[in-house]
Amino acid sequence: MRPGRFDRQISIDKPDLKGRESIFKVHLKPIKISSKLDIHKLAEQTPGFAGADIANVCNEAALIAARKGKESVEMDDFQDAVDRVIGGLEKKNKIISPEEKRIIAYHEAGHAICGWFLEHAYPLLKVTIVPRGVAALGYAQYTPKEQYLYNTDQLFDQICMTLGGRASEELNFKKISTGAQNDLQQITRIAYSMVTVYGMNEKVGNVSFYDPAQENSFTKPYSEETSKLIDEEVRKLIDKAYEHTKELLRQKSKEVEKLAEALLDKEVLFQSDVEALIGKRPYEEKRALDVSDHSEHKNVPSENGTPSGISVIPPAATEDVKQ
Amino acid sequence: MRPGRFDRQISIDKPDLKGRESIFKVHLKPIKISSKLDIHKLAEQTPGFAGADIANVCNEAALIAARKGKESVEMDDFQDAVDRVIGGLEKKNKIISPEEKRIIAYHEAGHAICGWFLEHAYPLLKVTIVPRGVAALGYAQYTPKEQYLYNTDQLFDQICMTLGGRASEELNFKKISTGAQNDLQQITRIAYSMVTVYGMNEKVGNVSFYDPAQENSFTKPYSEETSKLIDEEVRKLIDKAYEHTKELLRQKSKEVEKLAEALLDKEVLFQSDVEALIGKRPYEEKRALDVSDHSEHKNVPSENGTPSGISVIPPAATEDVKQ
Amino acid sequence: MRPGRFDRQISIDKPDLKGRESIFKVHLKPIKISSKLDIHKLAEQTPGFAGADIANVCNEAALIAARKGKESVEMDDFQDAVDRVIGGLEKKNKIISPEEKRIIAYHEAGHAICGWFLEHAYPLLKVTIVPRGVAALGYAQYTPKEQYLYNTDQLFDQICMTLGGRASEELNFKKISTGAQNDLQQITRIAYSMVTVYGMNEKVGNVSFYDPAQENSFTKPYSEETSKLIDEEVRKLIDKAYEHTKELLRQKSKEVEKLAEALLDKEVLFQSDVEALIGKRPYEEKRALDVSDHSEHKNVPSENGTPSGISVIPPAATEDVKQ
Amino acid sequence: MRPGRFDRQISIDKPDLKGRESIFKVHLKPIKISSKLDIHKLAEQTPGFAGADIANVCNEAALIAARKGKESVEMDDFQDAVDRVIGGLEKKNKIISPEEKRIIAYHEAGHAICGWFLEHAYPLLKVTIVPRGVAALGYAQYTPKEQYLYNTDQLFDQICMTLGGRASEELNFKKISTGAQNDLQQITRIAYSMVTVYGMNEKVGNVSFYDPAQENSFTKPYSEETSKLIDEEVRKLIDKAYEHTKELLRQKSKEVEKLAEALLDKEVLFQSDVEALIGKRPYEEKRALDVSDHSEHKNVPSENGTPSGISVIPPAATEDVKQ
Amino acid sequence: MRPGRFDRQISIDKPDLKGRESIFKVHLKPIKISSKLDIHKLAEQTPGFAGADIANVCNEAALIAARKGKESVEMDDFQDAVDRVIGGLEKKNKIISPEEKRIIAYHEAGHAICGWFLEHAYPLLKVTIVPRGVAALGYAQYTPKEQYLYNTDQLFDQICMTLGGRASEELNFKKISTGAQNDLQQITRIAYSMVTVYGMNEKVGNVSFYDPAQENSFTKPYSEETSKLIDEEVRKLIDKAYEHTKELLRQKSKEVEKLAEALLDKEVLFQSDVEALIGKRPYEEKRALDVSDHSEHKNVPSENGTPSGISVIPPAATEDVKQ
Amino acid sequence: MRPGRFDRQISIDKPDLKGRESIFKVHLKPIKISSKLDIHKLAEQTPGFAGADIANVCNEAALIAARKGKESVEMDDFQDAVDRVIGGLEKKNKIISPEEKRIIAYHEAGHAICGWFLEHAYPLLKVTIVPRGVAALGYAQYTPKEQYLYNTDQLFDQICMTLGGRASEELNFKKISTGAQNDLQQITRIAYSMVTVYGMNEKVGNVSFYDPAQENSFTKPYSEETSKLIDEEVRKLIDKAYEHTKELLRQKSKEVEKLAEALLDKEVLFQSDVEALIGKRPYEEKRALDVSDHSEHKNVPSENGTPSGISVIPPAATEDVKQ
Repeated sequence: MRPGRFDRQISIDKPDLKGRESIFKVHLKPIKISSKLDIHKLAEQTPGFAGADIANVCNEAALIAARKGKESVEMDDFQDAVDRVIGGLEKKNKIISPEEKRIIAYHEAGHAICGWFLEHAYPLLKVTIVPRGVAALGYAQYTPKEQYLYNTDQLFDQICMTLGGRASEELNFKKISTGAQNDLQQITRIAYSMVTVYGMNEKVGNVSFYDPAQENSFTKPYSEETSKLIDEEVRKLIDKAYEHTKELLRQKSKEVEKLAEALLDKEVLFQSDVEALIGKRPYEEKRALDVSDHSEHKNVPSENGTPSGISVIPPAATEDVKQ
Repeated sequence: MRPGRFDRQISIDKPDLKGRESIFKVHLKPIKISSKLDIHKLAEQTPGFAGADIANVCNEAALIAARKGKESVEMDDFQDAVDRVIGGLEKKNKIISPEEKRIIAYHEAGHAICGWFLEHAYPLLKVTIVPRGVAALGYAQYTPKEQYLYNTDQLFDQICMTLGGRASEELNFKKISTGAQNDLQQITRIAYSMVTVYGMNEKVGNVSFYDPAQENSFTKPYSEETSKLIDEEVRKLIDKAYEHTKELLRQKSKEVEKLAEALLDKEVLFQSDVEALIGKRPYEEKRALDVSDHSEHKNVPSENGTPSGISVIPPAATEDVKQ
Repeated sequence: MRPGRFDRQISIDKPDLKGRESIFKVHLKPIKISSKLDIHKLAEQTPGFAGADIANVCNEAALIAARKGKESVEMDDFQDAVDRVIGGLEKKNKIISPEEKRIIAYHEAGHAICGWFLEHAYPLLKVTIVPRGVAALGYAQYTPKEQYLYNTDQLFDQICMTLGGRASEELNFKKISTGAQNDLQQITRIAYSMVTVYGMNEKVGNVSFYDPAQENSFTKPYSEETSKLIDEEVRKLIDKAYEHTKELLRQKSKEVEKLAEALLDKEVLFQSDVEALIGKRPYEEKRALDVSDHSEHKNVPSENGTPSGISVIPPAATEDVKQ
Repeated sequence: MRPGRFDRQISIDKPDLKGRESIFKVHLKPIKISSKLDIHKLAEQTPGFAGADIANVCNEAALIAARKGKESVEMDDFQDAVDRVIGGLEKKNKIISPEEKRIIAYHEAGHAICGWFLEHAYPLLKVTIVPRGVAALGYAQYTPKEQYLYNTDQLFDQICMTLGGRASEELNFKKISTGAQNDLQQITRIAYSMVTVYGMNEKVGNVSFYDPAQENSFTKPYSEETSKLIDEEVRKLIDKAYEHTKELLRQKSKEVEKLAEALLDKEVLFQSDVEALIGKRPYEEKRALDVSDHSEHKNVPSENGTPSGISVIPPAATEDVKQ
Repeated sequence: MRPGRFDRQISIDKPDLKGRESIFKVHLKPIKISSKLDIHKLAEQTPGFAGADIANVCNEAALIAARKGKESVEMDDFQDAVDRVIGGLEKKNKIISPEEKRIIAYHEAGHAICGWFLEHAYPLLKVTIVPRGVAALGYAQYTPKEQYLYNTDQLFDQICMTLGGRASEELNFKKISTGAQNDLQQITRIAYSMVTVYGMNEKVGNVSFYDPAQENSFTKPYSEETSKLIDEEVRKLIDKAYEHTKELLRQKSKEVEKLAEALLDKEVLFQSDVEALIGKRPYEEKRALDVSDHSEHKNVPSENGTPSGISVIPPAATEDVKQ
Repeated sequence: MRPGRFDRQISIDKPDLKGRESIFKVHLKPIKISSKLDIHKLAEQTPGFAGADIANVCNEAALIAARKGKESVEMDDFQDAVDRVIGGLEKKNKIISPEEKRIIAYHEAGHAICGWFLEHAYPLLKVTIVPRGVAALGYAQYTPKEQYLYNTDQLFDQICMTLGGRASEELNFKKISTGAQNDLQQITRIAYSMVTVYGMNEKVGNVSFYDPAQENSFTKPYSEETSKLIDEEVRKLIDKAYEHTKELLRQKSKEVEKLAEALLDKEVLFQSDVEALIGKRPYEEKRALDVSDHSEHKNVPSENGTPSGISVIPPAATEDVKQ
């Protein structure tokens, strides 16, 4: 978790909310669309999309509607198209055993419930157990807020939400699986960043070992003693977050069960479905801010190795239970 | 055992069960096959085979049958052909001493018995002490299940099954040999992954140091202290698994002996032979799932250096007692 | 924080104060400028600018004035132009939430107040919460002094001023944010330099591990024990500076509040505005010295990776609250 | 002694015993050979020889016989030729002092006696103090067995046999020399392999850090603590083997003396000579197995840097007392 | 401070004292020189100069005299020329504040006084606070002795003389500045060399880790424990030297003040000026030996990264108070 | 002192004693030589010389004799020529101070006396304080013995002889100088080899970490703990040798003085001169063996970086007091 790890981010200026709305309008012109189509909502649901991605969505949506024999392209065609562009075509032939389906459902329900009841989590957009692409067996997608500064509480909630999947597995099956690997990778990175890059740990102090030029450094810039302290503080932080997450999920065990069972039944749940099942989110729903510049953030650097299709949503989305 | 070690896997989309069945049908067209030939079973026995491998199998099978003067190509010709494609031609001229043959037989019997009586092991396909290729003096092959998530119990059983060979040597000869080297390599990798990649160790905690982008990293991402803890926890895990394996093999010492002696007699035993010798497996035999996508799994990453011919079966098969 | 890190600085001889004044005069010839324009002040406000940068400023200023329909180019047009050249065009479409605006304002006020009441800080030029370029959400700019030698008191004050942002966040919100990352990076570098390069720590002693030729060194030139001592001494130094900074800001809490609220109101405050709000700076304002050779200083080496647009002001300016 | 050190072995399929016999027959056709020539024996004495090496031997033998004015090429000509191909031409002009000759003789006698009285050592072929090639001042050559598995007892005896030279020097001269350097190198490798690759140490446990793909790894895959444990266990193992070796040589001190003095007298002793001096080997002489595939073994990987001419005999031969 | 650091020195055979005198004579032929010109003295003041450098000096001197309207080129023109060739043209436009001027003057006076009263220091040539080139704010220049062997006392005095600048700052201003960075770099190198290369430390012992071939070594050749011991012994040595230096400067505080004030007044002081101020040096002035081969010395290796213009004087000159 | 350091030796088969004699005869044919010329002795004095070197010697000798106006080339001309080829032309213009001359004389006398009274040292050929080449201020040359095995006593004496220079400086001047750097480098290498390569240390045990293939290894093959033990044992060994050396030189203080004063007087002393001064060497003078193959020895590997001209004598010669 060398600081040097974060500096290879290439910032490409993606269009913002307004920009995307304009681009949608351009690409929708030749398409016969339903009069109910909410272009603003489409733009909202495609944070991080480049112009080419939006063109792709429009074409896909037209094809989907055509295949269904529709006269005009409707909102759900576009949502299908967005999903395809993000995650690739659904792999219907992937045979997932019923036991695994249950694990995935409770894992995702754990994420969704954490996101719902943690103040600083992003509002849920949808949660699904339909596998997508090469790696994802299920995922929860959130409406990200345009945010530039993160305080310790917000980062802590983000860690908890991300640990929600594993915590739910442990509480509901008394067993943990390999499915949380990607989640743990994310929180490991966030926790190490808090301690070594953002100076958010009292014992390690107000230092930042982040160094964009240290690409070729071969040694840790600090001593083994400091390295040990950093490991300890990270472990404490993650342990605390995991206990907090399990406590929350214990209190909300009925909600988790409701959501998981609904997922096993319907496979996809949208925000409104979740609301219908477990009631309104206890925090005021803020306007869904645009995160088109999100990839520029170096505060919470995204994973270099993450496939680009996935990078449009993290850290707002916890795409997990990788196969 | 750096996390970075796992990331060089190249995922080539191999055909799935149905796909292989279709490919077999194509390549079988020009061949006169026995009316009893079960193409579905052939497809089942060739997980991970590419189209070219299947074409190869069909050609080999036709040649084998021709050499035997058969009028049509039969199931056993195909099974021979599959074996040749996997392991290369049998090295009949390899002179193995009777003492070594006994060690190999008990080693393989240890694997097979562990796999038979451990709930989470894969169902046995065949076990043999006929040397194959450059490195294998014998091996046990399993029908892999299509599985995306592994819990700690399943990984523990996999470690035990893999330790079955060495444990059997120790119990039956009071001596251990170099033959378990490949087995130990596999469990070392699995155990380190559990502790450092899947967050399955309580003391090390919910962290994952797996990092697909860390190909060029030069230092451990954690302190010497953490490194020491990881080593300790891995050692405890493996010690526990080894004790468990030896206990199981002590209880099943008669079954091990039966199997080993039968192997010394017949050299190859199929699932039905084993069943005839020691009775039905105590666990419900689940449908043999297709693992054509198996090589994409990053949960239990396969060895980079493994020859491709072998990679079609691990981790489901414990190919060991290398020369 | 290897000493070797500092040696890649390329010293390009930038024009000095007089030089810049002359260059301005050349480029201003074809432009109709206001009779009140103070060219000397312009030269003063553009330390570190190359000839091409000055030409750029003049062109920009002319365009800005033209867009406003002015007859002649005035001082504020030039100041706008300077800002654009330094930080890129203002990103008006960047939506910053009111909560974040508050944090930024108090963070910048913290810097400004520290700079105002610390004897060895540079005199303030302006402070702003208007985001600029890719990374800056706000910044404080200082009139740097031409200085070749820094004593421990001066470097200590510089660290305190740079910690002023985080300290102000902690005191005013009881929470700290990721916005101080760049500040912490700077003080980490300065503190490590004091201890390992300038021999300013009693326990580590009169040594300097700075080595311009050590570009390719792979190991620390000292033992783990010394490395541990260095880490400890750096931590003590930074802890002491942070306590000092918080103490100062506690005493000046009213001034911080005044400045922050004024910033939220007006977004930009110049030196005279600050003086009007909180009174004259308690230290004699020394002549604004020219720092055109500043980039040659190896005493306080600038960050290699810093974007060039920003490098014209540090270490005199604390450009922070990065997004 | 990194595990990664063993993986650069290139396995070239050398002809086996039968293969070599056939190749000899081909190359012997144009040569007038003695009717007593035992081609099978020749094949036995040339394990690991490639076709080209055998052709070389036949040519050399013909030249040697010609130089001696013989009418037909006899067995001893072939044995000379084999020696030349293995070790290069004898360096008659190498002036070795009588003191050194004595050391070499007792060193080699130590190896030979250990090999003779240790159950798991290979049967002796010949022992000599005639220097050969660039590095060897003397050596003992064994008839290797074709063996694929090695247990701990066998590896322990191999270590003892290899330590026999130094032990004999210590016991007979109360001094040790640099001549054992190559022996120590070999046992260092074997002992570290037992502990880190073959899982044969109880404290280090059932792990194998052997990794064929780790060619470019830069760090030990385990902690300093484990590294220390490995060193300790290796040291204990070697100390134990050295004590065992000295005890054996103390008991057989008369046999060592007999052999050493005979070597000083005759320079070369064959198996039958040794038998005549000290009686039959107390273990049943097993058939001399073929080791043509020996170079493929990865269990006891041969030294990468070993000159190819020497690699045909280790680990069966202890070629030592290097100059 | 790896031993490997010293081996990149390229020894170019520079002309010796006689050689330089001859070269001067050649280049002076076309120039009309003052009859009082002391060519031998010129040669003495240009140790380490290549032929091209001497040619350069002659041309410069001629130009300087011409600009002054002189009829013949005089000694001071040559001295100016030598200075220009060594340090580049004087940077008159560099604005150094009076406070900094004082620090520089006392720093240089510290060096000069130490050199004057330490037995093994080189005799002073001149001391100046006129900034030169990119890095030097002032420097003391010495007449080096041709010396091939250095004992511990001599190296100790050299360290003290080099620490004289910082010690004088501390004693006179109760504050230390960044100006000693280059001095500390030099003594760090000398002290580490004494301990690790010249075997001059009792605890580390009679070892030398200097290795000209270790250019590509990646690890310290000794253990962390030894590394720690080396650091400790170096620190003790430097601490002792610093105390010694401060004690000397305390005793000679009046002389330091006299010299510093004279420097602030006249900016440059020659040996005779110093003598006039504080009396004769208490050690017999030995003949100024030639150090033309000095760059070949590997005993006290010069800094690789040092600009060549500067390398003609160290270690005899302490060119410091770098900006 | 990594084992890997020794493996880059390239063995070029240099002519042996007889070979050199033959080559001399060839090159002497066209030269008119003195009838007293002892060609065998010439061959003896040129161990390690290639054919080209011998040709060079003959040409040089002819030129030297010609310059002296001799009619035939005599033995002393050849000896001068040999010296020139070995060390380059004498640097008469190198000005060495009388103080340094004394140090050099006592340093070399220390070597010579140690070599004279240590049983296992090589017989002295000559000792000189005439500087030669770039680095040598003086040296002692020995007639090397052709030796293939070294026991611990012999290596210990070699270390003592090499420490004789420094010990003599300490005893005679109560001060040590940088002149022993090359000596210390040599004994550091020998001592580390004894402990880590030749298994000659009881605590480190019968291991050899020498590995000819480890050229690219990046880590020590052993733990920090072992590394520490190795350092300690090496230090003890060197400390013991140094005490032994000082004790010997204390006993022979008169002989050292005699030799040193004679050297100051005559500059060069041959074996017979030394004998005349201090009596016959107390050990039987063995025949001067040929070391033409010496460069092939890997037991005591020569320094890679040593200039070739010097490599013809070490380790038999202690060429030291480098400038």
